[in-house]
Amino acid sequence: MALEDRVLELAAEIPPPDESAAEEARRRHVGLAKPPGSLGRLEELGARLAGMAAECPPPVPENPAVVVCAGDHGVLRRGVSPWPQAVTAAMVGNFCGGRAAVNAIAKTVGARVSVLDVGVAGELDGHPLLRSAKVRRGTDDLSRGPAMSRHEAAQAVMAGAGVAEDLIESGGVDLLVTGDMGIGNTTPAACLISTFTGNPPEETTGRGTGIDDETLRLKVNVLEEALGLHVPDPGYPLGVLAGVGGLEHAAIVGVILMGAVYGVPVILDGVVSNSAALVALALAPHSVGYVIAGHRSAEPGARIVLEYLELEPLLDLGMRLGEGTGGLLAVPLVSAAARTLAEMATLEDLGF
Amino acid sequence: MALEDRVLELAAEIPPPDESAAEEARRRHVGLAKPPGSLGRLEELGARLAGMAAECPPPVPENPAVVVCAGDHGVLRRGVSPWPQAVTAAMVGNFCGGRAAVNAIAKTVGARVSVLDVGVAGELDGHPLLRSAKVRRGTDDLSRGPAMSRHEAAQAVMAGAGVAEDLIESGGVDLLVTGDMGIGNTTPAACLISTFTGNPPEETTGRGTGIDDETLRLKVNVLEEALGLHVPDPGYPLGVLAGVGGLEHAAIVGVILMGAVYGVPVILDGVVSNSAALVALALAPHSVGYVIAGHRSAEPGARIVLEYLELEPLLDLGMRLGEGTGGLLAVPLVSAAARTLAEMATLEDLGF
Repeated sequence: MALEDRVLELAAEIPPPDESAAEEARRRHVGLAKPPGSLGRLEELGARLAGMAAECPPPVPENPAVVVCAGDHGVLRRGVSPWPQAVTAAMVGNFCGGRAAVNAIAKTVGARVSVLDVGVAGELDGHPLLRSAKVRRGTDDLSRGPAMSRHEAAQAVMAGAGVAEDLIESGGVDLLVTGDMGIGNTTPAACLISTFTGNPPEETTGRGTGIDDETLRLKVNVLEEALGLHVPDPGYPLGVLAGVGGLEHAAIVGVILMGAVYGVPVILDGVVSNSAALVALALAPHSVGYVIAGHRSAEPGARIVLEYLELEPLLDLGMRLGEGTGGLLAVPLVSAAARTLAEMATLEDLGF
Repeated sequence: MALEDRVLELAAEIPPPDESAAEEARRRHVGLAKPPGSLGRLEELGARLAGMAAECPPPVPENPAVVVCAGDHGVLRRGVSPWPQAVTAAMVGNFCGGRAAVNAIAKTVGARVSVLDVGVAGELDGHPLLRSAKVRRGTDDLSRGPAMSRHEAAQAVMAGAGVAEDLIESGGVDLLVTGDMGIGNTTPAACLISTFTGNPPEETTGRGTGIDDETLRLKVNVLEEALGLHVPDPGYPLGVLAGVGGLEHAAIVGVILMGAVYGVPVILDGVVSNSAALVALALAPHSVGYVIAGHRSAEPGARIVLEYLELEPLLDLGMRLGEGTGGLLAVPLVSAAARTLAEMATLEDLGF
């Protein structure tokens, strides 16, 4: 079977969340020892978790993991970011060394860190935290031609799916967080967002890691050129990924799809993860039912995607770092939503 | 020394946070291996933590505790809540039994639970989690006369301060969360908020655990009567507490003051904690420098206090339960703010 068909097959395996388990959780909340509704958004989050697990109460996540998908971008040569490409490889080294923001935050919330190289341009030393599934050494310049082939996009999706499956099957992981690293990767993210939501580049393009007005204008122009060149068709998600996407974006799509296949909740980090969720939705309409918006990135595209997906983020702290940092911070909120459903007494237990 | 003077003495011990340590943290953030500002609000939170600890990087909290202060309210006889008074004692039992929302959430974030009885009307069985410092069996009806005497208010403040000191000195606690339990306690909270902010009862009064329109109108009337009767003077905070406050509100004031004396951050939960922070501020202007707004309660008074104190809450999840639940959910955010400052590599370390 062609690799592209394997992606479609994976997407087709995803069932809708179990609405009867979600409904049971909502009923359960009414009887718990607290005023109805007083846990606010944790209550509906708990109901969603029950739906994902098809079980009420849902299992309490005990073993979260962040998958940081890394890749480089040919479009960087257009000057869309002030950071040199070598930073991607250096930061992957920093993740493995345990001294990046993602490590500090993962430690805080008790999550393990897994780094996936699907397309870093530079050489990387082997490390126990690093999984190497390099599809190619960075993409081509999406403003001049396709970023990659459809086959390569499918490879990257399956690499992400493979890591997620391994973490779940062998690692006992029960809660996934998506993360990204790739200098220049908010440009393909904005291309994906414009393609799937229809919002124009001037609305979906942001300052990423911090660019000046002139670079922002250039970035918008690059998006317009790219979208004009490819005219990506949202009906063919792998074609969109290949034309204007990125390797780490594709890998995150795979993490989302495989999480959904297993009924494991997937917490999205920032705008790169958000853009990947649009691709996942286009491939598998039910996949968004397993996705939780952890944090609203300061990038303008993030707000557009979350509104499009009708996902209200749990956190809004003005972060715009990626790596999975914002998603990880939502892990305790997800665990608390499950644990209150699982462990609280009922009013009846207390004699009221 | 009169007990009231001991409260004033405690308040006078609180130094301002160390602005030079906070400034050092801000400088440190600029050099860490990430785009400047990309950790959003975690960065300024880290700087505040450095100021509280007078040390950069600030210590990473490893030992958080929530203090759930419990009391009953004479004003309940006016019908301001549909819940019977016996629920307060039953919920204290539930906290000790480990099956309340606060227990589930404390477990999620690795915090210990300490319950302080300063004024529960009912009999309580002894329990290792429960500290008994009952000042009296509930307050008097604040709409007919003073809720308690100034001496009793000071006793409750010192009880809260004592628990905080013991947790810090003997328990090694390095991060405090305030919590409350007391059927009817949003009525004194609203009285305190109106007194210290000047906002009228119809703005500070909310639906608490969930009351109908008629009860809400009654509650506003009760506030107007109480404030008209006492004309509480915000210049005499213990007098305000005695007139229109509650025993658990007073105890939370003590927790805040003692945390500040030790430079230990205090995360506020919902509207009852928020109202206590106003009393703490009136007693000790520097105390608010050690206070972190964990969550914005759905109660209207919460927004008023947080704006008055110029504290932006970390979370806004529509919760309105109390017990410390919303404050506890912010614990990992506070820890992450400290840990990123303490453990991240610098750009220079990575060769950039």
